[in-house]
Amino acid sequence: MASIGRTKLPSAAAAAALAFEAPRLAERYRQVRTATAALCAPLSAEDFVVQSMPDASPAKWHLAHTTWFWEEFVLQHAADRYEFHDKAFRYLFNSYYNTVGPMHSRPSRGLLSRPTVSEVMAYRTRVDERMATLLSGGRISDALARVVTLGLNHEQQHQELLLTDLKHLFSCNPLLPAYIQHAPAAPRAAPTLSYRTFDGGLVEIGHSGADFCFDNELPRHRVYVASFHIATRAVTNSEFLEFVRDGGYETAAHWLSDGWATVQREGWARPIYWTQSLDREFSLTGLRELNPHAPVCHVSCYEADAFARWANARLPTEFEWEIAAAAAPQAGNFVENQHWHPLPAAHPAPASDAGLPPLLQMFGDVWEWTQSAYAPYPGYRPVSGALGEYNGKFMVNQLVLRGGSCATPRSHIRSTYRNFFNPAARWQFSGVRLARDDISR
Amino acid sequence: MASIGRTKLPSAAAAAALAFEAPRLAERYRQVRTATAALCAPLSAEDFVVQSMPDASPAKWHLAHTTWFWEEFVLQHAADRYEFHDKAFRYLFNSYYNTVGPMHSRPSRGLLSRPTVSEVMAYRTRVDERMATLLSGGRISDALARVVTLGLNHEQQHQELLLTDLKHLFSCNPLLPAYIQHAPAAPRAAPTLSYRTFDGGLVEIGHSGADFCFDNELPRHRVYVASFHIATRAVTNSEFLEFVRDGGYETAAHWLSDGWATVQREGWARPIYWTQSLDREFSLTGLRELNPHAPVCHVSCYEADAFARWANARLPTEFEWEIAAAAAPQAGNFVENQHWHPLPAAHPAPASDAGLPPLLQMFGDVWEWTQSAYAPYPGYRPVSGALGEYNGKFMVNQLVLRGGSCATPRSHIRSTYRNFFNPAARWQFSGVRLARDDISR
Amino acid sequence: MASIGRTKLPSAAAAAALAFEAPRLAERYRQVRTATAALCAPLSAEDFVVQSMPDASPAKWHLAHTTWFWEEFVLQHAADRYEFHDKAFRYLFNSYYNTVGPMHSRPSRGLLSRPTVSEVMAYRTRVDERMATLLSGGRISDALARVVTLGLNHEQQHQELLLTDLKHLFSCNPLLPAYIQHAPAAPRAAPTLSYRTFDGGLVEIGHSGADFCFDNELPRHRVYVASFHIATRAVTNSEFLEFVRDGGYETAAHWLSDGWATVQREGWARPIYWTQSLDREFSLTGLRELNPHAPVCHVSCYEADAFARWANARLPTEFEWEIAAAAAPQAGNFVENQHWHPLPAAHPAPASDAGLPPLLQMFGDVWEWTQSAYAPYPGYRPVSGALGEYNGKFMVNQLVLRGGSCATPRSHIRSTYRNFFNPAARWQFSGVRLARDDISR
Amino acid sequence: MASIGRTKLPSAAAAAALAFEAPRLAERYRQVRTATAALCAPLSAEDFVVQSMPDASPAKWHLAHTTWFWEEFVLQHAADRYEFHDKAFRYLFNSYYNTVGPMHSRPSRGLLSRPTVSEVMAYRTRVDERMATLLSGGRISDALARVVTLGLNHEQQHQELLLTDLKHLFSCNPLLPAYIQHAPAAPRAAPTLSYRTFDGGLVEIGHSGADFCFDNELPRHRVYVASFHIATRAVTNSEFLEFVRDGGYETAAHWLSDGWATVQREGWARPIYWTQSLDREFSLTGLRELNPHAPVCHVSCYEADAFARWANARLPTEFEWEIAAAAAPQAGNFVENQHWHPLPAAHPAPASDAGLPPLLQMFGDVWEWTQSAYAPYPGYRPVSGALGEYNGKFMVNQLVLRGGSCATPRSHIRSTYRNFFNPAARWQFSGVRLARDDISR
Repeated sequence: MASIGRTKLPSAAAAAALAFEAPRLAERYRQVRTATAALCAPLSAEDFVVQSMPDASPAKWHLAHTTWFWEEFVLQHAADRYEFHDKAFRYLFNSYYNTVGPMHSRPSRGLLSRPTVSEVMAYRTRVDERMATLLSGGRISDALARVVTLGLNHEQQHQELLLTDLKHLFSCNPLLPAYIQHAPAAPRAAPTLSYRTFDGGLVEIGHSGADFCFDNELPRHRVYVASFHIATRAVTNSEFLEFVRDGGYETAAHWLSDGWATVQREGWARPIYWTQSLDREFSLTGLRELNPHAPVCHVSCYEADAFARWANARLPTEFEWEIAAAAAPQAGNFVENQHWHPLPAAHPAPASDAGLPPLLQMFGDVWEWTQSAYAPYPGYRPVSGALGEYNGKFMVNQLVLRGGSCATPRSHIRSTYRNFFNPAARWQFSGVRLARDDISR
Repeated sequence: MASIGRTKLPSAAAAAALAFEAPRLAERYRQVRTATAALCAPLSAEDFVVQSMPDASPAKWHLAHTTWFWEEFVLQHAADRYEFHDKAFRYLFNSYYNTVGPMHSRPSRGLLSRPTVSEVMAYRTRVDERMATLLSGGRISDALARVVTLGLNHEQQHQELLLTDLKHLFSCNPLLPAYIQHAPAAPRAAPTLSYRTFDGGLVEIGHSGADFCFDNELPRHRVYVASFHIATRAVTNSEFLEFVRDGGYETAAHWLSDGWATVQREGWARPIYWTQSLDREFSLTGLRELNPHAPVCHVSCYEADAFARWANARLPTEFEWEIAAAAAPQAGNFVENQHWHPLPAAHPAPASDAGLPPLLQMFGDVWEWTQSAYAPYPGYRPVSGALGEYNGKFMVNQLVLRGGSCATPRSHIRSTYRNFFNPAARWQFSGVRLARDDISR
Repeated sequence: MASIGRTKLPSAAAAAALAFEAPRLAERYRQVRTATAALCAPLSAEDFVVQSMPDASPAKWHLAHTTWFWEEFVLQHAADRYEFHDKAFRYLFNSYYNTVGPMHSRPSRGLLSRPTVSEVMAYRTRVDERMATLLSGGRISDALARVVTLGLNHEQQHQELLLTDLKHLFSCNPLLPAYIQHAPAAPRAAPTLSYRTFDGGLVEIGHSGADFCFDNELPRHRVYVASFHIATRAVTNSEFLEFVRDGGYETAAHWLSDGWATVQREGWARPIYWTQSLDREFSLTGLRELNPHAPVCHVSCYEADAFARWANARLPTEFEWEIAAAAAPQAGNFVENQHWHPLPAAHPAPASDAGLPPLLQMFGDVWEWTQSAYAPYPGYRPVSGALGEYNGKFMVNQLVLRGGSCATPRSHIRSTYRNFFNPAARWQFSGVRLARDDISR
Repeated sequence: MASIGRTKLPSAAAAAALAFEAPRLAERYRQVRTATAALCAPLSAEDFVVQSMPDASPAKWHLAHTTWFWEEFVLQHAADRYEFHDKAFRYLFNSYYNTVGPMHSRPSRGLLSRPTVSEVMAYRTRVDERMATLLSGGRISDALARVVTLGLNHEQQHQELLLTDLKHLFSCNPLLPAYIQHAPAAPRAAPTLSYRTFDGGLVEIGHSGADFCFDNELPRHRVYVASFHIATRAVTNSEFLEFVRDGGYETAAHWLSDGWATVQREGWARPIYWTQSLDREFSLTGLRELNPHAPVCHVSCYEADAFARWANARLPTEFEWEIAAAAAPQAGNFVENQHWHPLPAAHPAPASDAGLPPLLQMFGDVWEWTQSAYAPYPGYRPVSGALGEYNGKFMVNQLVLRGGSCATPRSHIRSTYRNFFNPAARWQFSGVRLARDDISR
């Protein structure tokens, strides 16, 4: 196990808390792995194979890569002479860890009809057995607990990607197959959009405490933030529809320059999964009526930013979002709800917080684009070893999203969590929360 | 059935011969359809889905498209109100028949995880039942016989494509899976390459007689051909290896200008399925030793032409080839042999033909590139209606290949048969037969 | 001079006729070189530099490359120790002669702001002086006469390309500058289109006699041609306009498959230089009214072929064209006419040829697309040495055009002359002459 | 003039200071315009026309666009019925102001052989006369003074771009022409690299005072910065050479993920203008020895960042840079020095600043990449009207550079100045200054 020690893991402070009784960690492992498999229940063998665009991966690849993680970062270090399930898999299912070795090219993931789904399932089973053995031995080391915890969070990220990649795949099929059968929620009008004001000042941003977090949430550090207003809920389909109907996609003045170039080049005229008739959208449950009260979803940051400018507002910074999130309950419409789609905001209970308008949908439903470039926090240190490639090397050309979505596992998210995508990305469950400068100060 | 009449079919003269007793045609239909399915026996569900390049199609698509043909060109015309198995399939599985209607884009065939393989198999079964009924009714019309015969030949073409497309797919997988397990044939030295001379003169080219042919083999017409020499067998791997080792891929002077540009752009350095070590090649039976005596295979016309120039020879014209083929037995290594790969030429029996060197491998093993552009024969008329799109509209930017390959059904080929591909195409079982001018005349 | 001998030149038979008195060849050299310079008179320095697309070259490059030819193929072989004007020019202005050495990449020709136009003009002057000296020495060798004659024909080809490349360049400028001021010819109605019939039979095709020809016109050889009808004049703008208005560019059925793909990909909807309003076209003399009687010009072979299919006709083969051309006077609207644009066909004199309809516009006005792929004649041998790259290596993916255009020097063309371009090329003065099968035989 | 009022200009506070006596502004206008023309003195007409890549513009375009600015934003508003010099120029020479109207596409700027250079020069002269008249009328309005000042700064930006675009153009020419003849500076060893520490705390960032600044430098606002170390000079060629020789371009671990992908795709192996032999570099004065002591120049942010990681350091944030710059003299090697290339850092005078190591080269020589994404300052408001497109819409996918270069006019730069480019951009005079976390706090 000494070699694990070389991988200095995210939150040093978290070590103590991670001194799990092994049974508890083993149980957590079992739950997460089972959840991954459960998401694949509705699929036919063929659905596992196709890669619908270079940014997406086949479901089979997600299943194998998340299994590769355990062999590469845990099992091989826990045995004296570890025998890999299949040496070719080390190459095939490495995602982007150059430190670990060469890898199959990303845009070619969809060429792999072999290994078959059942071979990949057998791979999962074999690795799960080995992991179960490893985690069954009474009290386990902090180092092991930390890398296993990271691996479980890694797998949860792929659970969400598995859904977004499948949604994109099915959207490319003229048959528009549904991932799963599920009736839309009963209609519910969203509450009126208003803004809540937060005072500026010197604040602490980033993760604290002993619980797990990714290295990119660290170190907790001071940031000066001016006072600001932030919207009480996400922008709805009907609000976004107004933008579309007002010529939003034809008016250069609303758009960032790169955004406008993208609109022109790609012929964007509405959110990616909306029909041309603007009254239906493709979802994991098939083509359905566009719910005017549900949050607009699957918009790029370019679209979110253009909408905000049109609405005489702006996107929040990730610091503003994090400050606001501290005032909101960490509850929401997550993947466990099995709605497979964002829901309209619920009307809040009678005003709490001394009459301040409550912040709705901060967690779940849709990831919320911020205007913040994904950058290292001051003093950021990637974990050492191959796992240091997990986050740090992506800190350019990306913008931060916050709050999780209806495809995020509930236990995966927190107020300091930083997701990130290229500003043109549309296939995630990404939406819009508005903010405004507080010009009264 | 009147509407079938609108489709004026290939060989008018063939009508009489096609006055099949229905049972005979029904039996033929059953055989061809069964052969298609048999080729899929070694596949896993996943292998059916992937499209490895825009020029190739998924196996599932071949299965569905060949079934679409029967609905579109036979069944819908044979019933008063035909109910299509699935109306979406008319769009999904149309290949390139603009006259029939719009179609799913070719490079997107690999995005279709649905319909599943078993749904496509059910589609085949349903259509086969309907066809069986149609063909069971005693004597059938000439028009019907003709279109069914065309459809069977169409399906045979897709049988070969199915194999070449699968081979390409498996070659893109770092695991290099074998399509099927099969031991290479026992080693056998190829006979020495020599040339046979044919006198020039006015000859008749093109199909004659009552048997089926494609419209592009018609009309039979006069061509003046000068006397020429043609090689007695296909070029072997060892001969081609000499070209490679002599810097063939680095010497511009051997290449057509577009060929050289392709070599540079694509980084070609050897035939597509050869390993970099030049001693093994990927085959339908997996990676195997390069057999020096077997015909070189999977070369583009650019490579064939460059080899010929290096060898101080040239490719034959399709007319020269057709003249020579008349002197050769229509036998060879076809798909029914189940070698799945070209074989070394067999040593001929004691000189027949009054001492002339016998022509080997004219049929089967590898398609032979000619220097002839794929063009209409004088007086060519495409069949009327949608089936007129079968051949005529491809008569530009293609070169003619002759003779069939180890992946061609034996009953599909004949001496007047014209296959055609872009000169850069490498994934077919295409090889080289040399020719030379007869400068003694 | 011995080294010149290594370059075996086109027409061996032509040697005798080429035994020019040097003064006569020197005079011819002076005329052709002066004509090249004269075409540049209307240009500003800036016009010489720009490359508007990879297929086109800057005027300055044409001036320099045609000068490079004399140094590379004549002068360096005629002196014991030849000193090149500038060694860098050997690389910069080599077009595609791999045998000669490496070369500047074609799409980068427009990056060369240096050498300046005046430096290139000085280069021309220096080389002209040396050539004048070389050609002034009384009777010169046959070998030298042959290569100089080839060089002069080479330079004439670049004279035409210089005009077509400039026309394309100016068409890309929103100011639509005219190359030269010139009033359109007085309106003149074209004679009615009719067809003239030629009997089939065994004919001789290719150049004969002692005059110069390119190697691709040789050897003269026998071809069997069936009887055919060929149109008496080129297709006019008004006839082509009818095709456009009849939805010609929106109807897949008229098009070759690759042509239709090009139409879709490039958004073609009319000939390249026509305005969207279909009533004006860009010309070397600026934007002008579309003359309904003038030949349609600047159409690709895809467009020519689609038009022919729509018109229930076809393009002639190059053999048919050559047979017909023998019956036509070798006169027409060439570059010396300084119309800079095709003209309507003149009404013919009272029927000659025993009442047969005369063939108009066979030479000049517009190059006429044939359906013949550009291929070697049987027994074709490229000249040896670097000049062998002149024609032979382009014999794939091109179609033959015949007859010259309004941008061709009169002395450059003949009935056996084979021009060739990719079927998608539109920027040459290329038009359409129709043909039909003679189904009466 | 009222309409100018609509353009609310950058620094409201600056209005008072801008109450120029008109003669002073007129003189400044004359100086800046003359400087632009002076930079073009070494050019031939041909050099003005070519666009060497989509990111670069022809010199002629820079000359015309900076003139367009005066007509579009000043002159047309200052006259009752302004007659544009040439209406087509409004379209041709608009860069990216969608609000003003449509524009010629950026990658097509190099297609414009017309208007000629002398026509563009005449355009400049005519506009300069009109501007002289406008600015000659005694005291002018604040609004006019502000927009003219902006226009002069705009023109200075294009002066630098003119040089960097010409350098790129000449680098693409195999002749490697020099923009200008100039002897390299006498050799001088750079002082040892050390770091200076700055204490963290709440600081004010952004422009203050009445002088001109761009809107992106506003508003001045509070930022919390942790203490840090910053290098005393720019990274030298010899230091960067060590990185290259240590396999820097072959080691994925040093690179951001997008940077590594760029290295692989583009085949980067050294700074863009270095020769393969690593001992010379192309400069505005031609190919010259690589000076080991001069700052490395023309590196992208990807390369700067990879170098920093390899050197166990990082790039500074733009806030750190601005704090440090306040401690440095605003002097350096600017375009007025006419070295046309960065120079080695001069050895400092005996320690000032109470023994702290002085910061060298903060201004001039090379722009210094920061790790800060180009983002709006809190409370940022673009100026209203078309000039609001000047900066704001580019605030995504760019990183900030600071300090100016040897191609920057001295009067153009200041410590709050924010330049910005895509992280892959290499053709600017961009270099590297290192920073480090202060882990002692």
